[in-house]
Amino acid sequence: MRHSTSRSDAERLDRDDPLKSLRGRFDLPAGVVYLDGNSLGALPKNVAERVYRVVTEEWGRDLITSWNLHGWMELPSRVGGRIAPLIGATTGEVVCADSTSINVFKLLAAALKLNPDRSTILSDSGNFPTDLYMAQGLGELIGGARRLRVVDEETLVDSIDENTAVVMATHVNYRTGRRHDMQAVTRRAHELGALMLWDLAHSAGAMPIELDAVRADFAVGCGYKYLNGGPGAPAFLYVAERHLDSVRPPLSGWLGHEAPFAFDLEYRPASGIERNRVGTPAILNMAALDAALDVFDGVDMKQVREKSVALAEYFIELVEERCGEFSVELVSPRNASARGSQVSFRHPQAYAVMQALIERGFIGDFRAPDVLRFGFAPLYVRYVDAWDTAAALRDILETGAWDQEKFRVKSRVT
Amino acid sequence: MRHSTSRSDAERLDRDDPLKSLRGRFDLPAGVVYLDGNSLGALPKNVAERVYRVVTEEWGRDLITSWNLHGWMELPSRVGGRIAPLIGATTGEVVCADSTSINVFKLLAAALKLNPDRSTILSDSGNFPTDLYMAQGLGELIGGARRLRVVDEETLVDSIDENTAVVMATHVNYRTGRRHDMQAVTRRAHELGALMLWDLAHSAGAMPIELDAVRADFAVGCGYKYLNGGPGAPAFLYVAERHLDSVRPPLSGWLGHEAPFAFDLEYRPASGIERNRVGTPAILNMAALDAALDVFDGVDMKQVREKSVALAEYFIELVEERCGEFSVELVSPRNASARGSQVSFRHPQAYAVMQALIERGFIGDFRAPDVLRFGFAPLYVRYVDAWDTAAALRDILETGAWDQEKFRVKSRVT
Repeated sequence: MRHSTSRSDAERLDRDDPLKSLRGRFDLPAGVVYLDGNSLGALPKNVAERVYRVVTEEWGRDLITSWNLHGWMELPSRVGGRIAPLIGATTGEVVCADSTSINVFKLLAAALKLNPDRSTILSDSGNFPTDLYMAQGLGELIGGARRLRVVDEETLVDSIDENTAVVMATHVNYRTGRRHDMQAVTRRAHELGALMLWDLAHSAGAMPIELDAVRADFAVGCGYKYLNGGPGAPAFLYVAERHLDSVRPPLSGWLGHEAPFAFDLEYRPASGIERNRVGTPAILNMAALDAALDVFDGVDMKQVREKSVALAEYFIELVEERCGEFSVELVSPRNASARGSQVSFRHPQAYAVMQALIERGFIGDFRAPDVLRFGFAPLYVRYVDAWDTAAALRDILETGAWDQEKFRVKSRVT
Repeated sequence: MRHSTSRSDAERLDRDDPLKSLRGRFDLPAGVVYLDGNSLGALPKNVAERVYRVVTEEWGRDLITSWNLHGWMELPSRVGGRIAPLIGATTGEVVCADSTSINVFKLLAAALKLNPDRSTILSDSGNFPTDLYMAQGLGELIGGARRLRVVDEETLVDSIDENTAVVMATHVNYRTGRRHDMQAVTRRAHELGALMLWDLAHSAGAMPIELDAVRADFAVGCGYKYLNGGPGAPAFLYVAERHLDSVRPPLSGWLGHEAPFAFDLEYRPASGIERNRVGTPAILNMAALDAALDVFDGVDMKQVREKSVALAEYFIELVEERCGEFSVELVSPRNASARGSQVSFRHPQAYAVMQALIERGFIGDFRAPDVLRFGFAPLYVRYVDAWDTAAALRDILETGAWDQEKFRVKSRVT
């Protein structure tokens, strides 16, 4: 398909978009094109009111009674149950809890226990670093021969062997957008007797995922990216039904106890997914995520994926046509079936270029050392956003507008 | 000191209370006497507006840029730094992160690593169960001979021996209000070569604590009890300055990395307290806690403790005088120096009695099997509250009002 570079064509694509009404479910600031929903999702419209009510009415007025009265105690399972259909899981296989990093630790430890005669946690260098760090920390803690082994992402499948206890991979690469073939990797892990842990941080909420269908063993994911749960939203974890009662939680907290309010001195795991809870849930953040999930009501994830692919292809074509002469090079896979919902380009001055874009109101992200990352959250990003961003990028590159001292100072967080 | 049982005497005590203005810093519901601030602190007045602003302006309008623009990334250290003076610590020894349970796990694992030739985590049966469960989970995970040993709380000090790697104790018992002598236990642990981990869940914010002065090694505590941070507020952890650079975090997440945004494949701990962070902080809950800490501005913790003791003694005297004939028996230590900021009584029908109190608007708590627990958060509880609660308790016991079917059904959370 050839796109014209006229903005009116982008406007036409938006008019024909079957998901166009979903953008109205978000509060987006004026004058901003937001292409960083893969880092922090935008604010859904009903969140502010829900959080305000939780603070003033539930906490302020009803105080401690809210644990029963307003269902705070059940919130982790309830939110987990709402995430389940977005990732191809069954209610009862998913709970909302803690951070992605901590959930990685829980499930890696559980996997090692279920596969006691094997030594290796196998992952790849395209994984998000915290997953690798948590595996390193776990290995050091338990000592002995059990260790993380990190291979290149292209060689992950072929590196699974009879020493592999568990394969841990992030479905979509945070930097390049490259997507693993979930079915193929899982199948190969199982063929060789390994368990499979998926990190869905960069895919949950952006595309259909079929954890049960591919027979994944474990998964974790993030609440604040495509699920739009807000800054520091609690994460989720998935345990396949067949493992629910075999998992022995290493972080065995009271809210994962069979009878938390019996105050026994001995830990006894709760049945099912509940045992993977640890301490008191962060109710304000979790209520925000609960409210945020309303934006998925009635949404067909296949349509979401179709729009994501169309947006990304449109953007790649525009950028290559208009900016190709300025050392901009596609990093993401060109083939949509090998890509998530983001598009990354390499540029030698990526940091300064991104700062210049941000100053003009086009918010993407920089990832070290030289990557411009643009996330296409299909629920609220439009074709005109892609068009306008490509135009701004061309202007910045053509005029050298990025070449200013103020754009070169790296702040701690980018 | 003899108190009259006249309500006007309670009113006089309130008029003379040097801290009486602090109650105005809270939004307390009408018609409720709240004696459960040791489970969930009341809502400080400035929290709702702060959280609303974080949601709508910081998240909604400024989106991903808020990590820098609004200091989200520094929030854990900043909030930790505000908690530090309340617990006798120095800025840089305290960080706000995760849940109390998870922080117990981190610091127990660190302590075992620092004391590698000893096998025992020593604790007592008065500890809050989740601390024991986390220690059990850690012991199972690392295997070998390193195990939790639980003794009666009266024998804790005498049970420390040359096998003790770390002593873990909760400063104030969640059920009885009994308080450990922090200095004596810590000194004995050190004499025998053990490290000391304190759980301040039921004391931080209710009394002066001197972690540095007693030379505690580690501490954890809760953000949502006397610190009033709201439901599921993140917890805090303390590492004595002399250990800061020796701690090797078992939960080695990216935000505890020396350079989180370098995205290295190898974990390198950040310097100082920062290494004890794991994943992305729960910003909404943490901002609520940050705003809540304003209520401590200019507050003298010695005065807070004096009021706590006076309130508790007044309440004990009233209840014993007026309800002693109805099988109500003091569980908390009579000696204030051995007590925290709560008063517990035993009654054979404690559950039903507490439900009857709650129905009348007097919110205390039940703790299995037979404990009526009343928390005296000195920042907002008044002498008239103590008077009115004792009067209601007497009426309920005298008339047998608790003896109704509806008060006997135990819900899951109490």
